[in-house]
Amino acid sequence: MTKTELEDIYHDYIACLNKQDWPRLARFVDSDVRYNGNQIGLEGYRSMLEANFAEIPDLHFNIELLVGELPYIASRLHFNCTPQGKFLNLNINGANVSFAENVFYKFHDKKIVQVWSVIDKTAIEAQLMAYSDRGDA
Amino acid sequence: MTKTELEDIYHDYIACLNKQDWPRLARFVDSDVRYNGNQIGLEGYRSMLEANFAEIPDLHFNIELLVGELPYIASRLHFNCTPQGKFLNLNINGANVSFAENVFYKFHDKKIVQVWSVIDKTAIEAQLMAYSDRGDA
Repeated sequence: MTKTELEDIYHDYIACLNKQDWPRLARFVDSDVRYNGNQIGLEGYRSMLEANFAEIPDLHFNIELLVGELPYIASRLHFNCTPQGKFLNLNINGANVSFAENVFYKFHDKKIVQVWSVIDKTAIEAQLMAYSDRGDA
Repeated sequence: MTKTELEDIYHDYIACLNKQDWPRLARFVDSDVRYNGNQIGLEGYRSMLEANFAEIPDLHFNIELLVGELPYIASRLHFNCTPQGKFLNLNINGANVSFAENVFYKFHDKKIVQVWSVIDKTAIEAQLMAYSDRGDA
């Protein structure tokens, strides 16, 4: 597999998420996938994503920056969305928030076997604080 | 510059931070460096790092995972340290915490010109919660 092929697969994976095409997820995610150190497996991964879309109906993954070095992809994802209730244990309640996720993926046989993700919670807190200061949330 | 040279420079940069060798920082960081969207410049960058070490005397940068693709480096850094007071607006007060930072760097002329960093605040909160539940913090 070349780096370009890996990056093409990654773009297809992100398109799969944005379409919520869950039956197709198995093409991209290994059955024993590990997420932030926990072996959640494909079913756990799918459940996590389904829960994300249930909590954030307008969730959309946007690739802002992609760095690839076999067998890894590092991606900075950008989100602009309105979580309906709590997200990351913060009371969002339909406020519009923009934030980044810096995430690493390890691939094996063209599938994601490991993910290390960090979401910028501090940026979301700053936006909620600004809304609160303005009195409009 | 080759990718190997870039990664060597990055390792030297991290060694510079761990030695708190601030006069040497200008070899690695551009005078107009941008950090999470803000043009803080070399002096602002140095001030930020000095403040980090003042708040966390046992701060040490450990590279857990490195992904390089010119002109970018993506790095997952691991920290195990004891912030003395507040950190990321959390009351740490000398508790031992382990956490990751997923960070992207853009290089130009062998120097860092842009940084996009996200620290895993959620992981720190979970550890403080566990300490609190055990009644030892």
